[in-house]
Amino acid sequence: MFQPKIKKYQKDFTYSYAFGAYPVIELLKFHPESILEVLFKEDSFKDGNSPVIQKECEKRNIPTQISNKLIDKISVKENTYVVGVFEKYTSKIKEDENHIVLVNPSNTGNLGTIVRTMLGFNFKNLAIIKPAVDMFDPLVVRASMGSIFSINFEYFNSIEEYISKFSVHHLYPFMLNGKSSIENVKFVKPYSIIHGNESKGLDEKFLEIGESVYIPHSKSIDSLNLSIAAGISMWEAAKSKI
Amino acid sequence: MFQPKIKKYQKDFTYSYAFGAYPVIELLKFHPESILEVLFKEDSFKDGNSPVIQKECEKRNIPTQISNKLIDKISVKENTYVVGVFEKYTSKIKEDENHIVLVNPSNTGNLGTIVRTMLGFNFKNLAIIKPAVDMFDPLVVRASMGSIFSINFEYFNSIEEYISKFSVHHLYPFMLNGKSSIENVKFVKPYSIIHGNESKGLDEKFLEIGESVYIPHSKSIDSLNLSIAAGISMWEAAKSKI
Repeated sequence: MFQPKIKKYQKDFTYSYAFGAYPVIELLKFHPESILEVLFKEDSFKDGNSPVIQKECEKRNIPTQISNKLIDKISVKENTYVVGVFEKYTSKIKEDENHIVLVNPSNTGNLGTIVRTMLGFNFKNLAIIKPAVDMFDPLVVRASMGSIFSINFEYFNSIEEYISKFSVHHLYPFMLNGKSSIENVKFVKPYSIIHGNESKGLDEKFLEIGESVYIPHSKSIDSLNLSIAAGISMWEAAKSKI
Repeated sequence: MFQPKIKKYQKDFTYSYAFGAYPVIELLKFHPESILEVLFKEDSFKDGNSPVIQKECEKRNIPTQISNKLIDKISVKENTYVVGVFEKYTSKIKEDENHIVLVNPSNTGNLGTIVRTMLGFNFKNLAIIKPAVDMFDPLVVRASMGSIFSINFEYFNSIEEYISKFSVHHLYPFMLNGKSSIENVKFVKPYSIIHGNESKGLDEKFLEIGESVYIPHSKSIDSLNLSIAAGISMWEAAKSKI
């Protein structure tokens, strides 16, 4: 089995880390075959989750190790008692389901929060247009509370590549100068909710793609935070069906 | 005039910092009387905002200083070119307007994002129940994009203290086990939208206060992120009126 070097995460690693009991439990549930090792802190077993995780690892022959030093070396936050070390895997989004499409997302916290919200509103397929932040970045995993392990996600080099692959999808790009207010939009299935980068949004060419949508807000702010705009778009598309 | 020591922010300081051009412009617009000093980096004047800020400071007799060293010493993020040093001020929320009430918020990023969303949906009054994160924390100021300078906010020691002061308000506590789905709630003015702490939510006693509300979501997640739940609650209460 591949032996990862336990050191601070870098994007080009072929493996990554899930910090904290909740993300590790999600990882065990959805991608146990990708787990290389689980690390515990010495004093973590007083907590209810670590014994459960350890037992599950034994059952699945997943190596475990107790090492405060290794965890402190790689942790992004204090008070991490358990870490799942896992190999990065690839997944594919499904053709007959609704999609969330993020164009050039650059903030780990926003991306993780969006994935958690997706799962909350039953969206299971995320397309990411590059360049973009790394979905396996431990900060994304953490902000998603482990939700990234239960959705499908796939990278594309351009929006054109995505559109040519999913030509049946009805496209709804969210833009400050979109044509329709979200309150008047009927999302026709299968659909793609498209959001742009945190600071730049979507460029003008998206006005020509599908039905562009805006979320009404006061002129006192330039724009809503990306995770809030994405949250409201998913809520409006999915509500009454949750 | 009070001479602040420019060093890393601590909660018990009587002054704080606004990092970045956009928050400094908001500060100049809404609380110029509280500004003690504005710091610039040497190479910041190639950018369009710094000259505008400097001119405004001259007009208002606000001291300025060029110092890369001081900015690097106190900055929370890289690429900060301008910093507003300001005295903390107090503000009061208005009795005849709708309120957002946050009980024990603990995350600076969430708080800043919620304030930015408030402004987007025309909520101008925020009540915060202690213990809570510091509204003037530079991380809150930054996540709010300077929005905190244009809203009213007030701290209370307990929810009871808040309720006794605003007995006319209709209370809508948001809880996982709330009685009404948000889709069926009519928010009666003046109203208070109440959200709990990031990890603990609101405790059971809130079920007896006003009309408790839940946001339907799938069982795949424990709860929505606080800033997403707050965003959706404000959107539902305010939409069609923005």
